[in-house]
Amino acid sequence: MKIAIAQINPVIGDFEFNFSLIKSFADKAIRQDCDLVVFPELSITGYPPRDLLEKKDFIETNLSYLLRLVDEIRGIGVICGFVDKNTGYEGNPLYNSAVLFENGKILHKTNKRLLPTYDVFDESRYFEAGAQCAPYSYKDKKIGIAICEDAWNDNNSTDKKNYHLNPVGLMIKDGANLIINISASPFHMGKQQFRQNMFGAIARKYKVPFVFVNQIGGNDSVLFDGTSAVFDINGEIAALARDFEEDLIFYDTDRQSGSILKENMHPVSECSNEAVLKALIMGTRDYVNKCGFSKVVLGLSGGIDSALTAFIAAHAIGPENVFTVFMPSVYTSKENYEDTRKLAENIGTKFEIIPIDGVFAQFLKIVSPSFKENEPEVTEQNIQARIRGTILMALSNRENRILLSTGNKSELAVGYCTLYGDMNGGLAVISDIPKTIVYEIAHFINRNKEIIPANIIKKAPSAELKPDQTDQDDLPPYDLLDSILKGYIEELKGAKELIAQGFDAKTVKDIILRVDRNEYKRHQAAPGLKVTSKAFGYGRRYPLAQRYAQRDI
Amino acid sequence: MKIAIAQINPVIGDFEFNFSLIKSFADKAIRQDCDLVVFPELSITGYPPRDLLEKKDFIETNLSYLLRLVDEIRGIGVICGFVDKNTGYEGNPLYNSAVLFENGKILHKTNKRLLPTYDVFDESRYFEAGAQCAPYSYKDKKIGIAICEDAWNDNNSTDKKNYHLNPVGLMIKDGANLIINISASPFHMGKQQFRQNMFGAIARKYKVPFVFVNQIGGNDSVLFDGTSAVFDINGEIAALARDFEEDLIFYDTDRQSGSILKENMHPVSECSNEAVLKALIMGTRDYVNKCGFSKVVLGLSGGIDSALTAFIAAHAIGPENVFTVFMPSVYTSKENYEDTRKLAENIGTKFEIIPIDGVFAQFLKIVSPSFKENEPEVTEQNIQARIRGTILMALSNRENRILLSTGNKSELAVGYCTLYGDMNGGLAVISDIPKTIVYEIAHFINRNKEIIPANIIKKAPSAELKPDQTDQDDLPPYDLLDSILKGYIEELKGAKELIAQGFDAKTVKDIILRVDRNEYKRHQAAPGLKVTSKAFGYGRRYPLAQRYAQRDI
Repeated sequence: MKIAIAQINPVIGDFEFNFSLIKSFADKAIRQDCDLVVFPELSITGYPPRDLLEKKDFIETNLSYLLRLVDEIRGIGVICGFVDKNTGYEGNPLYNSAVLFENGKILHKTNKRLLPTYDVFDESRYFEAGAQCAPYSYKDKKIGIAICEDAWNDNNSTDKKNYHLNPVGLMIKDGANLIINISASPFHMGKQQFRQNMFGAIARKYKVPFVFVNQIGGNDSVLFDGTSAVFDINGEIAALARDFEEDLIFYDTDRQSGSILKENMHPVSECSNEAVLKALIMGTRDYVNKCGFSKVVLGLSGGIDSALTAFIAAHAIGPENVFTVFMPSVYTSKENYEDTRKLAENIGTKFEIIPIDGVFAQFLKIVSPSFKENEPEVTEQNIQARIRGTILMALSNRENRILLSTGNKSELAVGYCTLYGDMNGGLAVISDIPKTIVYEIAHFINRNKEIIPANIIKKAPSAELKPDQTDQDDLPPYDLLDSILKGYIEELKGAKELIAQGFDAKTVKDIILRVDRNEYKRHQAAPGLKVTSKAFGYGRRYPLAQRYAQRDI
Repeated sequence: MKIAIAQINPVIGDFEFNFSLIKSFADKAIRQDCDLVVFPELSITGYPPRDLLEKKDFIETNLSYLLRLVDEIRGIGVICGFVDKNTGYEGNPLYNSAVLFENGKILHKTNKRLLPTYDVFDESRYFEAGAQCAPYSYKDKKIGIAICEDAWNDNNSTDKKNYHLNPVGLMIKDGANLIINISASPFHMGKQQFRQNMFGAIARKYKVPFVFVNQIGGNDSVLFDGTSAVFDINGEIAALARDFEEDLIFYDTDRQSGSILKENMHPVSECSNEAVLKALIMGTRDYVNKCGFSKVVLGLSGGIDSALTAFIAAHAIGPENVFTVFMPSVYTSKENYEDTRKLAENIGTKFEIIPIDGVFAQFLKIVSPSFKENEPEVTEQNIQARIRGTILMALSNRENRILLSTGNKSELAVGYCTLYGDMNGGLAVISDIPKTIVYEIAHFINRNKEIIPANIIKKAPSAELKPDQTDQDDLPPYDLLDSILKGYIEELKGAKELIAQGFDAKTVKDIILRVDRNEYKRHQAAPGLKVTSKAFGYGRRYPLAQRYAQRDI
C-alpha cells in the first residue's frame, strides 16, 4: 500500500479554503498512484478552533464539508480529522475524530481518547474522550488510527503517566500492524527530536511502521512545525517532511525496512536557531494573513529586539509591506539614527523618522510637574513609551497595518516594558525569545553577511528613557537573568530549588518577585509566538488578584 | 448535631490570612456550641488558584497549613477544602479535596469527582477526578460530602447530562442522610434562584437535609455571592446567609422540619439590580485590595458609564480614595463640565480637569495630516482616546492608583472603544453590563435620591470624538443591540436562529461581524467583573487568526 502524508496548513474556520486544500493534496496523491492519503488532526476546521466549537453552525458546517469531501474525492482512501457530535445523553457534546473514507463511502470513524488539557491545550473543555479504538482492516493492513495525544502515553519508564490508558498499545493488542498518528502537534525548541525519539521507540517496540502526519502553520501563538515522518519497524526514519512548509511525502508499506530513499527525506533546519527563525517567520506571516491583513508597522529603536523583529517581518510578508519608524527623543543617542537607517536599508523596509519631543513637552505640562528635576521618573519614562505607542497605532489605523511589538521574553518576564506603550501591537513577534537567544539568532542571520548592523548587536542594550540609561542599571546580566527565568518559568522551579542550584539568593528572590508582580501587564499583552515549552499567554494562567506573588520567599 | 456554615472570603495564595480566617470562624462556631463547622471549596488556597497549582511549593504550603489547622482547631469537627496530591502513578497530579478533622485527627478525606471544565473553569487542567465518594459516619449522621460540581449532575429531566455519574445519588445509595456541599460557585444574574431550586429539589427527592456552603468575594473576574443555605427534607430553605458578605449561619439537624427560625434567615438582595450592584462593588473592592492597592483613578466623560463606575468605586473603597478626572477637548459639550462636577460632588470623589487639546494638536502635526478636513477620521478619534488613556496612566503611575476602565458590555462587544485608549485600566468594572442594564442600575441608585445627576441619565450617549457625534450614529438602538448581543454571546445563537426569532437580517449580520472582528481588542482588555452567564475574558476563548469571523453569513 502506498501512503501519501499530506502536511497542510489549514485556516481555522475557513471551511471552503480547507476543503480546497485537502482536495488538491488528495489529487496530487492520486497522481502519484497512492492508495491512501492522510491529513492532520481537525484538518477540516483547523486547529485549535477553541470556543468556535461551541457554535452549532460551526459544527454543522464542518460536517457538511466532510460530506462534500467524501463525495468529491474518488479513487483513493482518505484519513482526515474532523469534529463529530456525541449523540449520547451524557458527557461533552463533541468528539475530536478521524474518518477513513473511499469512493463516496465512510468506512470507519474513531474518536480521540486522550484529551490534552494543559499548557495551551483545552480539549477536555469541548470533547468527550473516545471509548474505544479498534484497528480497521484496509487493503492488506490493519490500521490503528491514533489522534495526536493518543500516541503520547506509551512510555516504558517509571515516570508518572498523564493518562490511564495507552491507545496505541491497545490497538496493537487488537492486531494493528500499521499505526497512523494524525496530529496537530505544536513546535517548541527541542520538540522535534523528542517526538522522533518517542515515535521511533514505539515503532521499534511493537515492530510496526508508525506514520506521523502533522500540520504546519501559525494559529495565534501556537506554531506547527510539520516534520511529518514515517518510522519503520526498526524505529528508523523512512520518510521525513520539511519543517514549517507544506509538504507531501510518500511511504510504501511493501518496501523493505532499511531501504531508505533519499527522495523521501526532505531537508529540515540544521540547528535550533534556524528552526526558531523559521517558526517566527511562518508565525508572523500566518498571523498577518489569517487575520486578513497584508501590511505591518513597527518601531525601530536602534536596539537588537526591534532589528530582529523587522528582519522577521520583512521575510514573512516582504520588505515592501513593512513600515519601520524611528521615534527619537532627547535621550536618543546619535548612533541609533545611523544604525536604524542602515538596518532599514539592509532589509529594504520603508523607513520614517518621527520625533516625539513636541508631544512629550505638552504631556509634561499637564500631568507631570515632577519632571522639572533632572532625572525623569518612571511616570515620565512611561509617557515617552506611550507617545510612541500612540504614534504607531495612528499609523496602523491610517494604513490598515498590524502593529508588531518588539519586546523579548526576558523583558516581558520582569516587566521591563510599558503597558499601552512599547507593548502595543497585534502580535508580539519575539515575546517568547529570551534576550540571550535574540543575540544568537542575530548572529545566525549575519552568518554569511552583515544584515543586522554589527553595532546594533555590539552596543549595550538601553531603553533610552532617561540620560545614559542601560538595561543593566536595572537588571542582572542577561545570561544570568535568562538562566533563572528558564528555571522559574519553563521548569517551574521555586526559589529554594534555584538557590540550591547555586544561584545567588537575593537575585533569585528579586527576579521571582518581578515576574510575579508583572502578571497584570502580560494579561493585556498581544498574543506572542510560542517557541519554548512555556510561553506567556494562553498556556500560562495566573490569577492577578492574589498574594502568593507578594509573599516572603 | 449543630452545624455552623462559614461563608468566608479567602485570598488566593495568602495562606497565613486564610488560616487566620478559618480559625476565627471556627472559634465563633465553638462559642455557639456547634459540633461541626463547614468551610467552602479550596478554602486554604482560595479559589481559583489556576496555574499556581503547578508550583510545588504552593501545594506543599497548602498541605502544611492544613496540618496547622488540624493541630490548632480543637473542640469542634471541621470540614474544609484543600488541594491533595495524587500519589498514584497515573493521571493528573492533584485532587480538589475535602477533609473532615477533629481534635488533632484527620477522620476522613474525599476528592471531587466532577471537574468543571467550561466557561471560566479549567479543573481538568489540574485535577484528577476522585474515584469514589463513600459517606462518612460522624456523630449521629452519615455525611455525604459533595464538592461543588459534584451536586450539579442530579437532574430528572431528559436534558443531556454533562457527566456520567451522580455523586450525590451514589452517596445516598450508600446511606448518606446529610449532604454537605462545599462550594466555590460564582455569581451571575439569576444563578441564586437556579441554585436554590436545584438544591431544594435534591433535598426533597432524597428526603435528606442539604447544606450548601459557598465562598464570597471577587477573584479577578469571578465573583462569589455566598447565599449559603440549608435545605430541609422538604426542600424548603431552613437557613440562608447574606449575599456578597462574609457570614456565619447555623443549622441544627435535630430540629423539626418546618420550624424555620427567623434568625437563621439573613437578608439578601431584593432585586437583580441590587444584586448586580453589590457584586460590582464587592468585585472592585476585592480586586483593588487583593492586588495590594488602596486607591483608584478613572476618567469621567459626562456619560452614564463612567458615572456608574465612579459610584461603584466610591462605595467599594471609599470616595476619598477615588480620583476622578475630566479631560475635555474641543468636541466636549458644555453640559458635561457641569454634569461631571456635580457627580463628583454627589459621590464625594476628588475631581480634576485636564484638557487634552494641546497634546492633541502636537500629535496631529506629526502623524495625521488628514485632520485638516472637517471631520476627524477614526485615526484622529483614537488619538484623542489614547491621549486620555496616557494621562490616566500617568496619574496611576504617579500616585500608585489602579486605573479603572469604564466601558460597558455592549460597546466592548461591537468594538465601540479604543484599545490603549479608553480600554486602559487594571479592572474593567462594568464590562459585563449591557448598556440597557447600566441604565437600570443608575435608576436603582437614584431610587430614593438623585445621586447620579438626572441629566447624565437623560442625555443621548456620545463618545464626543467628533462634532455632534452620538452612539446611535454608528450603532442600532441599545435595546435592540442588547437583545441581539444576548442571543449571540450568552445563548450562543447563530445568525439564522436570531433572524428566525424576528430580528432584522441585516442588523443581525452587521452586529455579529462587529463582535467577531473585534476579538483582538478584547484579547488585550483588562479583566472585567463577570455578572452574566457569558462574559468576555477568561471564560470565552476565541482564536484571533481565523476566518470564520469573516465569512458570509
